[in-house]
Amino acid sequence: MKISQVGEFGLISYIKEWVQGKNPEVFRGVGDDTAVINLSRHKYLLFTCDTQVEGIHFLLSFTTPYLLGKKSMAINVSDIASMGGVPTYALISLILPQETELSFLRELYRGFMEEGNKWGVTIVGGNISRTEGPLTVDISLLGEVKKRHLKLRSGAKKGDSILITGHPGRSAAGLKLLHANKINDFPELTGAHLSPTPRLREALIIASFPEVSSMIDVSDGVLQDLGHILEESSAGALLWEKDFPIADTLSQAAGVLGEETLKLFLNGGEDYELIFTANPEKAEMIKNEVKVNRGTEISIIGEITDDYRKITLQNKFEEKINLFPQGWDHFKDI
Amino acid sequence: MKISQVGEFGLISYIKEWVQGKNPEVFRGVGDDTAVINLSRHKYLLFTCDTQVEGIHFLLSFTTPYLLGKKSMAINVSDIASMGGVPTYALISLILPQETELSFLRELYRGFMEEGNKWGVTIVGGNISRTEGPLTVDISLLGEVKKRHLKLRSGAKKGDSILITGHPGRSAAGLKLLHANKINDFPELTGAHLSPTPRLREALIIASFPEVSSMIDVSDGVLQDLGHILEESSAGALLWEKDFPIADTLSQAAGVLGEETLKLFLNGGEDYELIFTANPEKAEMIKNEVKVNRGTEISIIGEITDDYRKITLQNKFEEKINLFPQGWDHFKDI
Repeated sequence: MKISQVGEFGLISYIKEWVQGKNPEVFRGVGDDTAVINLSRHKYLLFTCDTQVEGIHFLLSFTTPYLLGKKSMAINVSDIASMGGVPTYALISLILPQETELSFLRELYRGFMEEGNKWGVTIVGGNISRTEGPLTVDISLLGEVKKRHLKLRSGAKKGDSILITGHPGRSAAGLKLLHANKINDFPELTGAHLSPTPRLREALIIASFPEVSSMIDVSDGVLQDLGHILEESSAGALLWEKDFPIADTLSQAAGVLGEETLKLFLNGGEDYELIFTANPEKAEMIKNEVKVNRGTEISIIGEITDDYRKITLQNKFEEKINLFPQGWDHFKDI
Repeated sequence: MKISQVGEFGLISYIKEWVQGKNPEVFRGVGDDTAVINLSRHKYLLFTCDTQVEGIHFLLSFTTPYLLGKKSMAINVSDIASMGGVPTYALISLILPQETELSFLRELYRGFMEEGNKWGVTIVGGNISRTEGPLTVDISLLGEVKKRHLKLRSGAKKGDSILITGHPGRSAAGLKLLHANKINDFPELTGAHLSPTPRLREALIIASFPEVSSMIDVSDGVLQDLGHILEESSAGALLWEKDFPIADTLSQAAGVLGEETLKLFLNGGEDYELIFTANPEKAEMIKNEVKVNRGTEISIIGEITDDYRKITLQNKFEEKINLFPQGWDHFKDI
């Protein structure tokens, strides 16, 4: 059987099976985006990695080495942020075709450094290898989190509010605009795709609330990443379309592109916004706290149900529709 | 300028320049194989990564996924060992062609697990990405070392003895035998190439001696890795050919292959033996301690001089010859 028949998430299930054995120091291991390891009485060590492969994750005709460096760092920082932690140290593994230009690498490192400095990351080393294949950037990032601030995918409870930062769907629209060669029409959307901002500072505020029961960052799409929360929390979700934070530019770009705005919002990936669940009595307070301190909008877009793994949309006509995640899967044949 | 004109070590110098900024918690950063970070009063955190790219580092016609998994883990463990530390947690990043077989991955993980378990490594996660290029395995490994046991490339002093574990050159000979399709003639040599053993237990004994002034593992070749010690220690070396631990099988294989034994010994890479320097009054004692406890042979092959970066060979005819490292460089045009 080929891995394309199994899909990314099927593959992760297999790997979980293969990597048996329990280490009591490991609080969360294979299967989560970020490993959580005992560090001291009050802190966990966080350990994550993420890869960007030319032709799969980025095209050099759309981005620049500087932006690629920034984004590669940003998406790792986002993984640490979504646990409620702060990033600390990074190793950068570069797998390079021999004809790579030195000036390309200098720009790539300018991106790594600028983004890393912004979030307190120190680059402490890495590795360089040659390849006959595409240019690949693989960053491993360490972080720390106070034990009482750690947020996981599990923990969402029936009745919890579902909240989301910012305006998802913009990155996917940006990518489609790049493909449609409409680069200058919506710089905010192409920018959201090429240079996403991890919600680290927002995450630290959110994670400080014990009433926040679960959190994840939107890398694969709102539905798919919410789906991870539901699966790990053994729960379902009811979403209210009327409360979705749809950016005006997203609706406009959807029109230009001939795409459905709602689909871009629900299934578009790489927004690196945060989805989290919280006690409904505290939801407004958390939302305001983030707005006041960071200026970032948070929307309450639904609530957790006990309808295991089902996501139901209550649309603008008050009809209820079952939704199915159709986000990014690395391996599944389309 | 292309990176092939700069070479791997030139590239690392550039990266050191680009990654400016000092973090007082980082004791060793970019430029070393393993980063050394403050962890507690008595311990450092070690953080390293290494990549295996199909077609560059391995050929699937020579190895098996199981052995590839073992070796990928072993070479990272060796990097931690060479600092005097013990490995702890690993992330495994796989970059896979879509046609990869699930059974291939199962065998790869069997290798990761078996080798990891042997050295106390817990696999805590990783990442899987698709590629249109070659299969690539990138492992990031954490470790710990007691501060007083940390060994670096720097620290070798004039008059120190130069010691080496085992019988280098066997891995390079093994690789040449594989290429020459003489797979079954010297299973010990092909085994040394396909499934190297990191010298972790030996390293722990060696590192416990304060008289050991520097240490490195042989990944790029004896001369090249000794060269790293000399460069970082601002020193030179005199090597005594008569004391080189040349395996009988290495001489025999060199004959079959039409290669020079001495060249295989000095320039062959991927042995993952340890080269270290120590106060000459303690050299015999360290050698015996390792022999008695681990059964591993250590040879005293020369001494440190103040002839900056120069390596001189005193051959069997008592002549002195200048040597130049010609080990593995990922990028340099040949």
